[in-house]
Amino acid sequence: MNNYPSILLGKAVDQFASLPGIGRKTALRLVLHLLRQSEKDVEVFTSALTSLKQDVHYCRICHTVSDQEVCPICLSNKRDKHTICVVENVQDVMSIENTGQYNGLYHVLGGIISPMDGVGPSDLEIDSLVARIEPEDIREVILALPTTMEGDTTNFYIYRRLQNAYSQLPIANNQELKISQIARGVAIGNELEYTDEITLGRSIVNRIDFKV
Amino acid sequence: MNNYPSILLGKAVDQFASLPGIGRKTALRLVLHLLRQSEKDVEVFTSALTSLKQDVHYCRICHTVSDQEVCPICLSNKRDKHTICVVENVQDVMSIENTGQYNGLYHVLGGIISPMDGVGPSDLEIDSLVARIEPEDIREVILALPTTMEGDTTNFYIYRRLQNAYSQLPIANNQELKISQIARGVAIGNELEYTDEITLGRSIVNRIDFKV
Repeated sequence: MNNYPSILLGKAVDQFASLPGIGRKTALRLVLHLLRQSEKDVEVFTSALTSLKQDVHYCRICHTVSDQEVCPICLSNKRDKHTICVVENVQDVMSIENTGQYNGLYHVLGGIISPMDGVGPSDLEIDSLVARIEPEDIREVILALPTTMEGDTTNFYIYRRLQNAYSQLPIANNQELKISQIARGVAIGNELEYTDEITLGRSIVNRIDFKV
Repeated sequence: MNNYPSILLGKAVDQFASLPGIGRKTALRLVLHLLRQSEKDVEVFTSALTSLKQDVHYCRICHTVSDQEVCPICLSNKRDKHTICVVENVQDVMSIENTGQYNGLYHVLGGIISPMDGVGPSDLEIDSLVARIEPEDIREVILALPTTMEGDTTNFYIYRRLQNAYSQLPIANNQELKISQIARGVAIGNELEYTDEITLGRSIVNRIDFKV
Protein backbone atom coordinates (compact mmCIF):
# COMPACT_ATOMS: atom_id res chain seq x y z
CA MET A 1 0.00 0.00 0.00
CA ASN A 2 3.06 2.12 0.56
CA ASN A 3 3.29 4.95 -1.92
CA TYR A 4 0.14 3.68 -3.55
CA PRO A 5 -0.99 6.90 -5.25
CA SER A 6 2.43 7.34 -6.82
CA ILE A 7 2.16 3.90 -8.44
CA LEU A 8 -1.28 4.76 -9.72
CA LEU A 9 -0.15 8.08 -11.15
CA GLY A 10 3.25 6.64 -12.01
CA LYS A 11 3.17 6.73 -15.81
CA ALA A 12 2.10 10.36 -15.98
CA VAL A 13 4.54 11.38 -13.23
CA ASP A 14 7.37 9.58 -15.05
CA GLN A 15 6.59 11.49 -18.22
CA PHE A 16 6.58 14.89 -16.54
CA ALA A 17 9.72 14.04 -14.55
CA SER A 18 11.50 13.25 -17.83
CA LEU A 19 11.26 16.94 -18.79
CA PRO A 20 14.31 19.09 -18.03
CA GLY A 21 14.27 20.80 -14.63
CA ILE A 22 11.18 18.91 -13.41
CA GLY A 23 11.79 16.63 -10.42
CA ARG A 24 9.43 13.91 -9.22
CA LYS A 25 7.78 16.10 -6.58
CA THR A 26 7.01 18.84 -9.09
CA ALA A 27 5.86 16.21 -11.61
CA LEU A 28 3.42 14.84 -9.06
CA ARG A 29 2.11 18.32 -8.34
CA LEU A 30 1.53 18.91 -12.06
CA VAL A 31 -0.20 15.55 -12.50
CA LEU A 32 -2.51 16.18 -9.55
CA HIS A 33 -3.31 19.60 -11.03
CA LEU A 34 -4.24 18.03 -14.37
CA LEU A 35 -6.30 15.45 -12.53
CA ARG A 36 -8.44 18.24 -11.10
CA GLN A 37 -9.08 19.66 -14.58
CA SER A 38 -11.96 18.52 -16.75
CA GLU A 39 -11.43 15.76 -19.30
CA LYS A 40 -11.81 18.36 -22.04
CA ASP A 41 -9.05 20.56 -20.60
CA VAL A 42 -6.67 17.62 -20.53
CA GLU A 43 -7.58 16.85 -24.12
CA VAL A 44 -6.78 20.44 -25.14
CA PHE A 45 -3.43 20.02 -23.39
CA THR A 46 -2.51 16.76 -25.10
CA SER A 47 -3.72 17.84 -28.54
CA ALA A 48 -1.60 21.01 -28.31
CA LEU A 49 1.45 18.79 -27.81
CA THR A 50 0.49 16.40 -30.58
CA SER A 51 -0.11 19.14 -33.14
CA LEU A 52 3.13 20.79 -32.00
CA LYS A 53 5.09 17.76 -33.11
CA GLN A 54 3.20 17.58 -36.39
CA ASP A 55 3.19 21.26 -37.33
CA VAL A 56 6.56 22.53 -36.13
CA HIS A 57 9.85 21.68 -37.81
CA TYR A 58 13.36 23.10 -37.89
CA CYS A 59 14.39 25.52 -40.64
CA ARG A 60 16.64 23.73 -43.14
CA ILE A 61 18.97 26.76 -43.32
CA CYS A 62 19.26 28.31 -39.85
CA HIS A 63 17.76 25.50 -37.72
CA THR A 64 15.34 27.66 -35.77
CA VAL A 65 11.75 26.43 -35.37
CA SER A 66 9.47 26.94 -38.34
CA ASP A 67 6.15 25.76 -39.70
CA GLN A 68 7.73 25.39 -43.16
CA GLU A 69 10.94 23.96 -44.51
CA VAL A 70 12.54 27.42 -44.41
CA CYS A 71 11.70 29.85 -41.64
CA PRO A 72 10.17 33.32 -42.22
CA ILE A 73 13.38 35.03 -41.08
CA CYS A 74 15.47 33.26 -43.75
CA LEU A 75 12.76 33.91 -46.35
CA SER A 76 12.17 37.58 -45.51
CA ASN A 77 13.29 40.25 -47.97
CA LYS A 78 13.50 42.84 -45.21
CA ARG A 79 16.37 41.17 -43.35
CA ASP A 80 20.05 41.95 -43.92
CA LYS A 81 21.26 38.88 -45.84
CA HIS A 82 24.95 39.59 -45.24
CA THR A 83 25.00 39.05 -41.50
CA ILE A 84 24.56 35.83 -39.51
CA CYS A 85 24.13 35.82 -35.76
CA VAL A 86 25.26 32.50 -34.25
CA VAL A 87 23.29 31.44 -31.17
CA GLU A 88 23.10 28.38 -28.95
CA ASN A 89 19.38 27.66 -29.19
CA VAL A 90 15.94 28.77 -30.34
CA GLN A 91 15.24 30.70 -27.14
CA ASP A 92 18.22 32.93 -27.93
CA VAL A 93 16.75 33.76 -31.35
CA MET A 94 13.60 34.89 -29.57
CA SER A 95 15.54 36.91 -26.98
CA ILE A 96 17.50 38.76 -29.66
CA GLU A 97 14.38 39.30 -31.80
CA ASN A 98 12.69 40.79 -28.76
CA THR A 99 15.41 43.44 -28.42
CA GLY A 100 14.47 44.82 -31.86
CA GLN A 101 18.17 45.67 -32.37
CA TYR A 102 19.08 43.05 -34.96
CA ASN A 103 17.87 42.66 -38.52
CA GLY A 104 20.15 39.96 -39.96
CA LEU A 105 19.92 36.20 -40.21
CA TYR A 106 20.49 33.56 -37.55
CA HIS A 107 22.23 30.24 -37.19
CA VAL A 108 21.18 28.00 -34.30
CA LEU A 109 23.96 25.63 -33.23
CA GLY A 110 21.71 23.43 -31.10
CA GLY A 111 24.14 23.61 -28.17
CA ILE A 112 27.75 24.58 -27.43
CA ILE A 113 30.95 22.58 -27.22
CA SER A 114 31.08 20.97 -23.78
CA PRO A 115 33.45 18.01 -23.31
CA MET A 116 32.03 17.49 -19.79
CA ASP A 117 28.61 16.79 -21.29
CA GLY A 118 30.06 14.86 -24.22
CA VAL A 119 29.10 17.55 -26.75
CA GLY A 120 31.71 17.97 -29.50
CA PRO A 121 31.74 20.15 -32.64
CA SER A 122 30.27 17.34 -34.74
CA ASP A 123 27.14 17.31 -32.54
CA LEU A 124 26.44 20.94 -33.43
CA GLU A 125 25.38 22.73 -36.61
CA ILE A 126 28.87 24.11 -37.22
CA ASP A 127 29.55 22.44 -40.59
CA SER A 128 26.29 23.83 -41.90
CA LEU A 129 27.30 27.31 -40.65
CA VAL A 130 30.61 27.15 -42.48
CA ALA A 131 28.82 25.89 -45.59
CA ARG A 132 26.55 28.98 -45.57
CA ILE A 133 29.36 31.55 -45.74
CA GLU A 134 30.21 31.51 -49.45
CA PRO A 135 26.96 30.82 -51.30
CA GLU A 136 24.98 33.28 -49.18
CA ASP A 137 27.62 36.06 -49.46
CA ILE A 138 27.94 36.58 -45.74
CA ARG A 139 30.05 39.61 -44.68
CA GLU A 140 29.76 39.36 -40.91
CA VAL A 141 29.29 36.57 -38.40
CA ILE A 142 28.24 37.70 -34.92
CA LEU A 143 29.02 35.17 -32.20
CA ALA A 144 26.25 35.49 -29.59
CA LEU A 145 27.00 32.47 -27.42
CA PRO A 146 26.90 32.29 -23.61
CA THR A 147 29.72 34.18 -21.90
CA THR A 148 30.99 31.01 -20.23
CA MET A 149 34.06 28.83 -20.64
CA GLU A 150 32.10 26.56 -23.01
CA GLY A 151 30.81 29.55 -24.95
CA ASP A 152 34.35 30.91 -25.31
CA THR A 153 35.64 27.53 -26.49
CA THR A 154 32.88 27.33 -29.08
CA ASN A 155 33.52 30.92 -30.17
CA PHE A 156 37.20 30.14 -30.71
CA TYR A 157 36.48 26.91 -32.58
CA ILE A 158 34.01 28.61 -34.92
CA TYR A 159 36.43 31.52 -35.44
CA ARG A 160 39.18 29.12 -36.59
CA ARG A 161 36.84 27.15 -38.82
CA LEU A 162 35.51 30.31 -40.48
CA GLN A 163 39.00 31.75 -40.95
CA ASN A 164 40.11 28.54 -42.65
CA ALA A 165 37.07 28.31 -44.86
CA TYR A 166 37.23 31.97 -45.88
CA SER A 167 40.93 31.86 -46.76
CA GLN A 168 40.12 29.16 -49.31
CA LEU A 169 37.35 31.11 -51.02
CA PRO A 170 38.05 32.40 -54.58
CA ILE A 171 39.45 35.93 -54.53
CA ALA A 172 36.46 37.21 -56.52
CA ASN A 173 34.76 37.53 -53.18
CA ASN A 174 36.94 40.51 -52.42
CA GLN A 175 35.84 41.31 -48.90
CA GLU A 176 37.12 40.30 -45.51
CA LEU A 177 34.77 38.22 -43.40
CA LYS A 178 34.16 40.14 -40.19
CA ILE A 179 33.77 37.95 -37.13
CA SER A 180 32.46 39.76 -34.06
CA GLN A 181 31.13 38.82 -30.66
CA ILE A 182 28.50 40.41 -28.45
CA ALA A 183 29.79 43.00 -25.97
CA ARG A 184 30.46 41.83 -22.43
CA GLY A 185 30.48 44.18 -19.50
CA VAL A 186 28.47 45.67 -16.68
CA ALA A 187 24.76 45.04 -17.28
CA ILE A 188 22.67 48.18 -17.90
CA GLY A 189 21.22 49.48 -14.65
CA ASN A 190 23.72 47.67 -12.41
CA GLU A 191 25.81 49.21 -9.63
CA LEU A 192 29.56 48.63 -10.01
CA GLU A 193 29.90 47.44 -6.43
CA TYR A 194 27.54 44.52 -7.06
CA THR A 195 29.16 43.50 -10.35
CA ASP A 196 31.48 40.48 -10.13
CA GLU A 197 35.21 41.15 -10.43
CA ILE A 198 35.77 39.28 -13.69
CA THR A 199 33.02 41.17 -15.50
CA LEU A 200 34.11 44.51 -14.07
CA GLY A 201 37.78 43.80 -14.93
CA ARG A 202 36.87 42.88 -18.49
CA SER A 203 34.70 45.95 -18.87
CA ILE A 204 37.69 48.15 -18.00
CA VAL A 205 40.15 46.29 -20.27
CA ASN A 206 37.65 46.30 -23.14
CA ARG A 207 36.51 49.90 -22.65
CA ILE A 208 35.22 51.73 -25.72
CA ASP A 209 35.32 55.39 -26.85
CA PHE A 210 32.79 57.60 -25.16
CA LYS A 211 30.19 58.87 -27.59
CA VAL A 212 27.66 61.61 -26.93
CA MET B 1 8.37 38.60 -37.27
CA ASN B 2 8.94 39.71 -33.71
CA ASN B 3 8.64 36.79 -31.34
CA TYR B 4 7.77 34.57 -34.25
CA PRO B 5 8.72 31.20 -32.72
CA SER B 6 6.67 31.94 -29.63
CA ILE B 7 3.57 32.45 -31.78
CA LEU B 8 4.27 29.21 -33.58
CA LEU B 9 4.73 27.29 -30.33
CA GLY B 10 2.10 29.40 -28.61
CA LYS B 11 -0.64 26.85 -28.01
CA ALA B 12 1.67 24.32 -26.40
CA VAL B 13 3.48 27.00 -24.38
CA ASP B 14 0.12 28.34 -23.15
CA GLN B 15 -0.86 24.88 -21.99
CA PHE B 16 2.34 24.27 -20.04
CA ALA B 17 2.26 27.79 -18.60
CA SER B 18 -1.23 27.08 -17.25
CA LEU B 19 0.26 24.49 -14.88
CA PRO B 20 1.03 25.66 -11.33
CA GLY B 21 4.56 26.98 -10.81
CA ILE B 22 5.41 26.95 -14.54
CA GLY B 23 6.12 30.36 -16.05
CA ARG B 24 6.25 31.16 -19.75
CA LYS B 25 10.04 30.81 -19.99
CA THR B 26 10.01 27.38 -18.38
CA ALA B 27 7.02 26.39 -20.52
CA LEU B 28 8.95 27.34 -23.65
CA ARG B 29 11.95 25.31 -22.49
CA LEU B 30 9.72 22.26 -21.93
CA VAL B 31 8.04 22.66 -25.31
CA LEU B 32 11.38 22.92 -27.10
CA HIS B 33 12.52 19.81 -25.24
CA LEU B 34 9.44 17.89 -26.38
CA LEU B 35 10.00 19.16 -29.90
CA ARG B 36 13.39 17.48 -29.92
CA GLN B 37 11.86 14.14 -28.89
CA SER B 38 10.59 11.63 -31.43
CA GLU B 39 6.92 11.67 -32.41
CA LYS B 40 6.50 8.39 -30.55
CA ASP B 41 7.91 9.80 -27.32
CA VAL B 42 5.45 12.69 -27.47
CA GLU B 43 2.63 10.22 -28.06
CA VAL B 44 3.69 8.24 -24.97
CA PHE B 45 3.61 11.51 -23.05
CA THR B 46 0.15 12.55 -24.21
CA SER B 47 -1.38 9.09 -23.84
CA ALA B 48 -0.10 8.88 -20.25
CA LEU B 49 -2.04 12.07 -19.51
CA THR B 50 -5.15 10.90 -21.33
CA SER B 51 -5.27 7.54 -19.56
CA LEU B 52 -4.56 9.31 -16.27
CA LYS B 53 -7.81 11.20 -16.59
CA GLN B 54 -9.72 8.06 -17.58
CA ASP B 55 -8.26 5.61 -15.04
CA VAL B 56 -7.79 7.71 -11.92
CA HIS B 57 -10.63 8.91 -9.74
CA TYR B 58 -11.07 10.18 -6.20
CA CYS B 59 -12.03 7.82 -3.40
CA ARG B 60 -15.69 8.34 -2.46
CA ILE B 61 -14.87 8.06 1.25
CA CYS B 62 -11.51 9.71 1.90
CA HIS B 63 -11.03 11.66 -1.40
CA THR B 64 -7.53 10.47 -2.11
CA VAL B 65 -6.73 9.26 -5.64
CA SER B 66 -7.86 5.76 -6.52
CA ASP B 67 -8.45 3.57 -9.53
CA GLN B 68 -11.73 2.39 -8.01
CA GLU B 69 -14.67 4.06 -6.33
CA VAL B 70 -13.15 3.33 -2.91
CA CYS B 71 -9.37 3.45 -2.43
CA PRO B 72 -7.29 0.48 -1.21
CA ILE B 73 -6.54 2.22 2.09
CA CYS B 74 -10.24 2.57 2.94
CA LEU B 75 -10.88 -1.02 1.78
CA SER B 76 -7.93 -2.62 3.56
CA ASN B 77 -8.56 -4.92 6.54
CA LYS B 78 -5.11 -4.28 7.93
CA ARG B 79 -5.66 -0.59 8.66
CA ASP B 80 -6.87 0.79 11.99
CA LYS B 81 -10.49 1.74 11.23
CA HIS B 82 -10.89 3.90 14.33
CA THR B 83 -8.44 6.64 13.39
CA ILE B 84 -8.69 9.27 10.67
CA CYS B 85 -5.76 11.48 9.72
CA VAL B 86 -6.96 14.75 8.15
CA VAL B 87 -4.61 16.14 5.49
CA GLU B 88 -4.68 19.00 3.00
CA ASN B 89 -3.99 17.06 -0.21
CA VAL B 90 -3.06 13.78 -1.85
CA GLN B 91 0.67 14.48 -1.65
CA ASP B 92 0.37 14.61 2.14
CA VAL B 93 -1.18 11.12 2.15
CA MET B 94 1.86 9.89 0.26
CA SER B 95 4.29 11.70 2.57
CA ILE B 96 2.71 10.17 5.67
CA GLU B 97 2.50 6.70 4.06
CA ASN B 98 6.20 6.98 3.27
CA THR B 99 7.05 7.46 6.95
CA GLY B 100 5.63 4.00 7.71
CA GLN B 101 4.48 5.37 11.09
CA TYR B 102 0.73 5.50 10.50
CA ASN B 103 -1.72 2.69 9.94
CA GLY B 104 -5.11 4.39 10.13
CA LEU B 105 -7.41 5.95 7.57
CA TYR B 106 -7.16 9.34 5.85
CA HIS B 107 -9.40 12.21 4.94
CA VAL B 108 -8.22 14.59 2.21
CA LEU B 109 -9.75 18.07 2.58
CA GLY B 110 -8.65 19.26 -0.85
CA GLY B 111 -7.21 22.48 0.58
CA ILE B 112 -7.33 24.55 3.75
CA ILE B 113 -9.42 27.51 4.82
CA SER B 114 -7.85 30.61 3.30
CA PRO B 115 -10.00 33.74 3.06
CA MET B 116 -7.22 35.48 1.11
CA ASP B 117 -7.57 32.88 -1.66
CA GLY B 118 -11.35 32.77 -1.33
CA VAL B 119 -11.36 29.24 0.10
CA GLY B 120 -14.02 28.74 2.76
CA PRO B 121 -15.12 25.65 4.72
CA SER B 122 -17.79 24.82 2.14
CA ASP B 123 -15.12 24.45 -0.56
CA LEU B 124 -13.45 21.69 1.42
CA GLU B 125 -14.40 18.12 2.31
CA ILE B 126 -15.24 19.05 5.90
CA ASP B 127 -18.93 18.08 5.88
CA SER B 128 -17.98 14.65 4.58
CA LEU B 129 -15.38 14.32 7.36
CA VAL B 130 -17.97 15.12 10.04
CA ALA B 131 -20.38 12.69 8.39
CA ARG B 132 -17.82 9.87 8.68
CA ILE B 133 -17.43 10.09 12.46
CA GLU B 134 -20.51 8.21 13.67
CA PRO B 135 -21.14 5.45 11.12
CA GLU B 136 -17.47 4.49 10.92
CA ASP B 137 -16.99 4.45 14.74
CA ILE B 138 -14.01 6.80 14.70
CA ARG B 139 -12.19 7.19 18.05
CA GLU B 140 -9.43 9.61 17.05
CA VAL B 141 -9.04 12.35 14.47
CA ILE B 142 -5.46 13.46 13.85
CA LEU B 143 -5.16 16.93 12.34
CA ALA B 144 -2.10 16.88 10.06
CA LEU B 145 -2.50 20.23 8.29
CA PRO B 146 0.25 22.74 7.47
CA THR B 147 1.66 24.52 10.52
CA THR B 148 0.62 27.91 9.14
CA MET B 149 -1.99 30.48 10.08
CA GLU B 150 -4.40 28.94 7.54
CA GLY B 151 -3.65 25.44 8.85
CA ASP B 152 -4.33 26.57 12.43
CA THR B 153 -7.59 28.21 11.37
CA THR B 154 -8.71 25.05 9.63
CA ASN B 155 -7.66 22.93 12.62
CA PHE B 156 -9.76 25.08 14.92
CA TYR B 157 -12.78 25.06 12.60
CA ILE B 158 -12.69 21.26 12.27
CA TYR B 159 -12.22 20.88 16.02
CA ARG B 160 -15.38 22.89 16.70
CA ARG B 161 -17.39 21.05 14.05
CA LEU B 162 -16.32 17.66 15.37
CA GLN B 163 -17.02 18.65 18.99
CA ASN B 164 -20.51 19.77 18.00
CA ALA B 165 -21.26 16.69 15.98
CA TYR B 166 -19.91 14.32 18.63
CA SER B 167 -21.90 15.89 21.46
CA GLN B 168 -25.08 15.09 19.53
CA LEU B 169 -24.27 11.41 19.02
CA PRO B 170 -26.41 8.84 20.91
CA ILE B 171 -24.79 7.92 24.23
CA ALA B 172 -24.46 4.28 23.14
CA ASN B 173 -21.25 5.35 21.54
CA ASN B 174 -19.72 5.60 24.97
CA GLN B 175 -16.28 6.92 24.14
CA GLU B 176 -14.80 10.37 23.88
CA LEU B 177 -13.64 11.43 20.43
CA LYS B 178 -9.96 12.22 20.73
CA ILE B 179 -8.81 15.08 18.50
CA SER B 180 -5.05 15.42 18.20
CA GLN B 181 -2.64 17.35 16.03
CA ILE B 182 0.82 16.49 14.72
CA ALA B 183 3.73 17.55 16.96
CA ARG B 184 5.41 20.83 16.11
CA GLY B 185 8.95 21.61 17.16
CA VAL B 186 12.59 21.52 16.18
CA ALA B 187 13.05 19.29 13.11
CA ILE B 188 15.09 16.13 13.69
CA GLY B 189 18.78 16.76 12.96
CA ASN B 190 18.51 20.55 13.27
CA GLU B 191 20.76 22.78 15.38
CA LEU B 192 18.86 24.98 17.83
CA GLU B 193 20.74 28.10 16.73
CA TYR B 194 19.40 27.76 13.19
CA THR B 195 15.81 27.08 14.25
CA ASP B 196 13.46 30.04 13.94
CA GLU B 197 12.34 31.69 17.17
CA ILE B 198 8.65 30.83 16.92
CA THR B 199 9.32 27.13 16.41
CA LEU B 200 11.92 27.03 19.18
CA GLY B 201 9.64 28.95 21.55
CA ARG B 202 6.74 26.59 20.85
CA SER B 203 8.99 23.56 21.33
CA ILE B 204 9.86 24.77 24.84
CA VAL B 205 6.29 25.65 25.81
CA ASN B 206 4.99 22.33 24.46
CA ARG B 207 7.80 20.20 25.90
CA ILE B 208 7.00 16.55 26.63
CA ASP B 209 8.18 14.09 29.28
CA PHE B 210 11.59 12.62 28.60
CA LYS B 211 11.37 8.91 27.86
CA VAL B 212 14.32 6.48 27.66
